[in-house]
Amino acid sequence: MNMHKLNIVILAAGLGKRMHSALPKVLHRLAGKPLLAHVLDTARALSPQNVCIVYGHGGETVPQAITDETITWVRQVPQLGTGHALMQALPHLDKEGSTLVLYGDVPLTSVDTLQRLIATGRETESGESLAVLTVELAEPSGYGRIVRSDAGEITAIVEEKDASESQRQIREINTGIMVIPNRWLHGWLHKLENNNAQKEYYLTDIVAMAVKDSLGVRSVHPGHGWETTGVNSKIHLAELERIYQNESARKLLEQGTTLADPSRIDIRGQLTCGRDVEIDINCIFEGNVQLGDGVKVGAHSILKNTRVAAGSAIAPFSLIESAEIGENCRIGPYARIRPGTRLDNGVHIGNFVEVKNSIIAAGSKANHLSYIGDATIGKSVNIGAGTITCNYDGANKHQTIIEDDVFVGSDTQLIAPVKVAQGSTIGAGSTITRDTPPETLTLSRTRQMSVEGWKRPVKKPKGEK
Amino acid sequence: MNMHKLNIVILAAGLGKRMHSALPKVLHRLAGKPLLAHVLDTARALSPQNVCIVYGHGGETVPQAITDETITWVRQVPQLGTGHALMQALPHLDKEGSTLVLYGDVPLTSVDTLQRLIATGRETESGESLAVLTVELAEPSGYGRIVRSDAGEITAIVEEKDASESQRQIREINTGIMVIPNRWLHGWLHKLENNNAQKEYYLTDIVAMAVKDSLGVRSVHPGHGWETTGVNSKIHLAELERIYQNESARKLLEQGTTLADPSRIDIRGQLTCGRDVEIDINCIFEGNVQLGDGVKVGAHSILKNTRVAAGSAIAPFSLIESAEIGENCRIGPYARIRPGTRLDNGVHIGNFVEVKNSIIAAGSKANHLSYIGDATIGKSVNIGAGTITCNYDGANKHQTIIEDDVFVGSDTQLIAPVKVAQGSTIGAGSTITRDTPPETLTLSRTRQMSVEGWKRPVKKPKGEK
Amino acid sequence: MNMHKLNIVILAAGLGKRMHSALPKVLHRLAGKPLLAHVLDTARALSPQNVCIVYGHGGETVPQAITDETITWVRQVPQLGTGHALMQALPHLDKEGSTLVLYGDVPLTSVDTLQRLIATGRETESGESLAVLTVELAEPSGYGRIVRSDAGEITAIVEEKDASESQRQIREINTGIMVIPNRWLHGWLHKLENNNAQKEYYLTDIVAMAVKDSLGVRSVHPGHGWETTGVNSKIHLAELERIYQNESARKLLEQGTTLADPSRIDIRGQLTCGRDVEIDINCIFEGNVQLGDGVKVGAHSILKNTRVAAGSAIAPFSLIESAEIGENCRIGPYARIRPGTRLDNGVHIGNFVEVKNSIIAAGSKANHLSYIGDATIGKSVNIGAGTITCNYDGANKHQTIIEDDVFVGSDTQLIAPVKVAQGSTIGAGSTITRDTPPETLTLSRTRQMSVEGWKRPVKKPKGEK
Repeated sequence: MNMHKLNIVILAAGLGKRMHSALPKVLHRLAGKPLLAHVLDTARALSPQNVCIVYGHGGETVPQAITDETITWVRQVPQLGTGHALMQALPHLDKEGSTLVLYGDVPLTSVDTLQRLIATGRETESGESLAVLTVELAEPSGYGRIVRSDAGEITAIVEEKDASESQRQIREINTGIMVIPNRWLHGWLHKLENNNAQKEYYLTDIVAMAVKDSLGVRSVHPGHGWETTGVNSKIHLAELERIYQNESARKLLEQGTTLADPSRIDIRGQLTCGRDVEIDINCIFEGNVQLGDGVKVGAHSILKNTRVAAGSAIAPFSLIESAEIGENCRIGPYARIRPGTRLDNGVHIGNFVEVKNSIIAAGSKANHLSYIGDATIGKSVNIGAGTITCNYDGANKHQTIIEDDVFVGSDTQLIAPVKVAQGSTIGAGSTITRDTPPETLTLSRTRQMSVEGWKRPVKKPKGEK
Repeated sequence: MNMHKLNIVILAAGLGKRMHSALPKVLHRLAGKPLLAHVLDTARALSPQNVCIVYGHGGETVPQAITDETITWVRQVPQLGTGHALMQALPHLDKEGSTLVLYGDVPLTSVDTLQRLIATGRETESGESLAVLTVELAEPSGYGRIVRSDAGEITAIVEEKDASESQRQIREINTGIMVIPNRWLHGWLHKLENNNAQKEYYLTDIVAMAVKDSLGVRSVHPGHGWETTGVNSKIHLAELERIYQNESARKLLEQGTTLADPSRIDIRGQLTCGRDVEIDINCIFEGNVQLGDGVKVGAHSILKNTRVAAGSAIAPFSLIESAEIGENCRIGPYARIRPGTRLDNGVHIGNFVEVKNSIIAAGSKANHLSYIGDATIGKSVNIGAGTITCNYDGANKHQTIIEDDVFVGSDTQLIAPVKVAQGSTIGAGSTITRDTPPETLTLSRTRQMSVEGWKRPVKKPKGEK
Repeated sequence: MNMHKLNIVILAAGLGKRMHSALPKVLHRLAGKPLLAHVLDTARALSPQNVCIVYGHGGETVPQAITDETITWVRQVPQLGTGHALMQALPHLDKEGSTLVLYGDVPLTSVDTLQRLIATGRETESGESLAVLTVELAEPSGYGRIVRSDAGEITAIVEEKDASESQRQIREINTGIMVIPNRWLHGWLHKLENNNAQKEYYLTDIVAMAVKDSLGVRSVHPGHGWETTGVNSKIHLAELERIYQNESARKLLEQGTTLADPSRIDIRGQLTCGRDVEIDINCIFEGNVQLGDGVKVGAHSILKNTRVAAGSAIAPFSLIESAEIGENCRIGPYARIRPGTRLDNGVHIGNFVEVKNSIIAAGSKANHLSYIGDATIGKSVNIGAGTITCNYDGANKHQTIIEDDVFVGSDTQLIAPVKVAQGSTIGAGSTITRDTPPETLTLSRTRQMSVEGWKRPVKKPKGEK
């Protein structure tokens, strides 16, 4: 008995015709991640000897989309059923231990359920049995029914079309997920036949072989019914997406995060929240997002791959991507923070302000209608409304450096590369093309004049140009 | 038997007191369209001889709101019940064929259900019977009950107040929607009496007449219970709105569109999606919107009467109205595109940019904080941040023309009418009042100067002005 | 019998460990208001003699958060159970009349339910009985069961742990909310014992005392089950938040307000709507918001403490705080209106425009990309795109005054303090530092020039700086 030898085979060769998509079914995304990647993450959590993915439809797009050097990729062409799929993987399976069969379009099976399934397969005296994951469905129509003896032991899996009237009343069905002792698997697979209408080799046929070989067939139910739901259409995908999101929200609530509406939050990745975090309605979190203690995220905001330190508040309608936000910052509303941005403590970024690939030191503010790109800004700087770093000359991007305690007047253009020295004041409406001296007022300004006798344009009659 | 002579009468004279509105009930909008227009569209799909709408409360606002030359409008003043309403329409109904009675406040009856109802009315030997649409309700209280003989034939419709205790247990109720043979309708209507508390003429009384006249009374159930739900309050309106939106979302999913959350999309008109279209949460589509293959619509976006060609991506918080968007464009986030805009392939419109009534040719970009109004922009143009087309002189709007390969520096004002010639570069912060020569640098700029010894303002003590 | 002597004690000393928060449980917010404040508002509506709040965990943060001079605050340290809590309040309770016991973490008990409970306590001949609020639960596990005699009279409340098997089947449970005759309360509280595992004094023990003293024990059910739901975790808080919001939406619909989706509106305070108000999806209302007849609020908008007069339309993505909006105004999309703003009739504030602490008179417009701060703007003024009031000199804020009929050209900076006189026109791109004369054109502008032979920068090879 080799308790630790676990092979995992993920069947991912299906077409997914009802998805109506050019993308192979297993690459459709749930919570921002391909279905297959969900299954793979679950597989990894079981610490298997190896993971083998059987692919087919969609060709090399599937291996290309899942970048993981340790996977054994096995191509199944043509696709002649689940038994045939597993045959392709046979050369990569151990002689001892067991093989867990998973499906690339069944994304939400829990690690706990699979651990129970694996343990069940090892419970018998010989340490070996076939363990199948079964589930009770209110509407079992179309699925293979689990037939049990009076003693409750599984004796067969009967497909819908072969089922008697009384067997069709059975509500316990086969999910297809099973753990098979490798010692038996090799022999069974070679005995599979395809004498059916579809000329396919069905993996479920091995259950009858196990019974015939007097190997016990054990079963386990998943913790939740949705753990074995497969995705065959966009309707299924949307249903599982909502189940996943509701579960994510529930976990956040249990940890103490305040959600204004648990049915209106979308987490597509990993959201980590400190104590007393508050998230208003309709926020989206993508990738790896970390929110420190007391962080507030305003309604309709979107954060991707971003860390927000304690005490900061994100006002509504903000969009933040690949940024580091310090403590006690005030961001938004309508703030757009783009990749490569780092804001130190106490920075304020206000409405209609875009910040890209810039570092802004503690206590600085850009509160209105500005574009800050490729800039390094010191401490206690005030960026006036309408300020623009002209970082692009039509060919190359250049840096703007603004040192500590600078006051940039409104509607200033900073033509990069340029440095505004410590303590400078820039007059409103200036075009700054050269470095400024420290602690002075620098400006470019034309004399204000009034034109007497000037007449305003009048509205032209219609039709006139 | 005239199978093809179908008259349709839509009763739309009701007050709708519980709507608490100045607007006649049938003009309240469901999915952006008046209730009555939904019923009218359904009626049109049945290819009737004519459609007659009986209006009353709200007076001429109803005919004025529904611009359709082919409708026969019949005014009912005063409103003395459904039978009385139909009497007003009598002069416009044929002598043969049949009349379908619909209700202007029952918006979601399906064409399929009505076709079955019409067919049922023609099934009898004589080719004539009264066909009523009935439905089973869990809570039938308040509705007229369908009384059937032991053989299952409808013998009467009994109003709530006249019903015996056992009749009140009947859960099958009258929806009021019926198909009446015109040969009988004229006689029946003249026999209606108003000897009841309300002194009204009830159309349902003709069921008893049909039984008395030994004409068969047939019935059909709608495909869904909500098909016969009427709108009497804003609560009903909101409920039917959600039913309609859920149905719309389901249809999109079935066609293969990816919806992040089917319960958070609003379609108020016609949304047509190509293959592999993805729509994030909380988007609204109004009027006629077409999305090409692979189009992605970001969260919280609103599109009205717009076509987006294949491969384009709309980032979150965008608002697009009456525009044509080419292939592989990048729009938003926070982009506002207003009517009369046409973007060719590969155009980028970025954050806090407003485009109005402008044509932008392939590969051009306006990425930040700009206003482009009444402009014609060539290919491969770069519009710098903070650029403004000054299209309005306080009296008239003028055109800005920017030719191919122009680079407009940040914070430029283009005082229309003005032409920026092919290959021009405009220096940042310029006010362009005259046409520019091609392939040159044009700018208006004042020398940058620094003022030594200048002192910054200091904070005044409180109370001082 | 003193019908009008009602004391109310609110128990608010609990820890709320499962909230995982630094904030005392009763201060967590539901619909923007602390749980305890909801209970207090309900208590006030019953016109009691006095309201006594027993606090403990969280210390003085609780009294500090609820600013109400008339409350009697009683500190309970240590916390030895509900009976002990009420003992602390005893010195503040009258000798006659009765005491209503409420809980600071049960926020949604209705005034109607409590009035019925109080009335029930007075129904008996003696005018005195113990009245307890009970509720039937599908899953009563964990709650004290209401034990009744065959005649239906309450004889005891049995805690879960002390309940017999048959008592555990009882689904009617004790909510803890009760009305106690003061004549008896004093004696009963002194007899309470703490001989239980937790060494706590349980208020429910007085039910047995009432039975023993032959005082009737009466009961009342709440109008809705959720009226007695307590908040022990963020999951409960989110559930009650949704119940509250659904109820708020239902009330608005009943009054005739049109809601695009009743499950996507959040009201955190008081929203008052006139006739024919329409609110699109995902709007949030905070504090006191009043919407006049015919007001339309676009999707994804947020309004706080604001009054919008009849006929005004708020376009999507707008955020308005502490403002007065006149009639027939057009606001947004993407408009940010900050505190201290007053807009007169017919004002237009457009996209990417921020208005702060400003007064704008009738018919004036600021449609694009502007910042209006600390300004007083007259009638029929046109503020061009990109206009900025430079109200902050780095130390102090200054006023901008724009008189009637002014036309401010695009991209103008108004350096406050400054006055633009009646009828002035400001040329685009000007920096206005001094007051302008009336009815003239004022500008600061540099001559446009073109540089022949100028070469555009070329893209540097990678790696080069």
